[in-house]
Amino acid sequence: MRRRVSEARVGHLATTTTDGGPHVVPCCFVLRRTRLYTAVDAKPKSSGRLQRVRNLETNPAASLLVDHYEEDWANLWWVRIDGTARIRVSGSERDAAFELLAAKYPQYRREPPPGPVIAIDTRTWRAWP
Amino acid sequence: MRRRVSEARVGHLATTTTDGGPHVVPCCFVLRRTRLYTAVDAKPKSSGRLQRVRNLETNPAASLLVDHYEEDWANLWWVRIDGTARIRVSGSERDAAFELLAAKYPQYRREPPPGPVIAIDTRTWRAWP
Repeated sequence: MRRRVSEARVGHLATTTTDGGPHVVPCCFVLRRTRLYTAVDAKPKSSGRLQRVRNLETNPAASLLVDHYEEDWANLWWVRIDGTARIRVSGSERDAAFELLAAKYPQYRREPPPGPVIAIDTRTWRAWP
Repeated sequence: MRRRVSEARVGHLATTTTDGGPHVVPCCFVLRRTRLYTAVDAKPKSSGRLQRVRNLETNPAASLLVDHYEEDWANLWWVRIDGTARIRVSGSERDAAFELLAAKYPQYRREPPPGPVIAIDTRTWRAWP
């Protein structure tokens, strides 16, 4: 379960909007011990402040899904991790998360993301099948 | 945008839990005009009644994400559709949805899903980039 999450190149992050609706985005992420980190590709103070950040500032509940699809449905699987998110606009935790993200994704080495990091303290892991 | 959604083999369906948290699952689905249909692989009255169905009975807001990942990030894209869901345990709309699903997914022809259908009336389409 942990290996599948660590090796996945993309996950799907669900949050709750300020009016209680669902929101989901694809995201790159890294797993470090009991914490997930994902970067936000937008400037922290810009007017285009991303929906996921606004959502998490109001309701920090976050759910990250990692899954595999292929046409042979006997091989389908998913892992879902629920946790609590914090937004890190600057500081040592953000810097360390960027290092981990750049180690996993060479793309970040060429072009570091300008925005904050979302740190998710994982609580519940579920897997299927 | 519409073609990408129609051709996608898997989407990610986000709902809101009864205590206001996020929930996300991978799902097969079919698009028909302004409606999305996805089947639930569980018996409608079973004790294992699926979380997504419980969620939608309380809060019908649904968000389906279709996205593409590859290592060349210049080619990333996603389409997200927000709408309102209804659970169809039986009846002609459920039957018609199963026919559409079976036409898209040969896997359903061999083994029809035993549960209800979720019908989502689509409202807002968003795409990136």
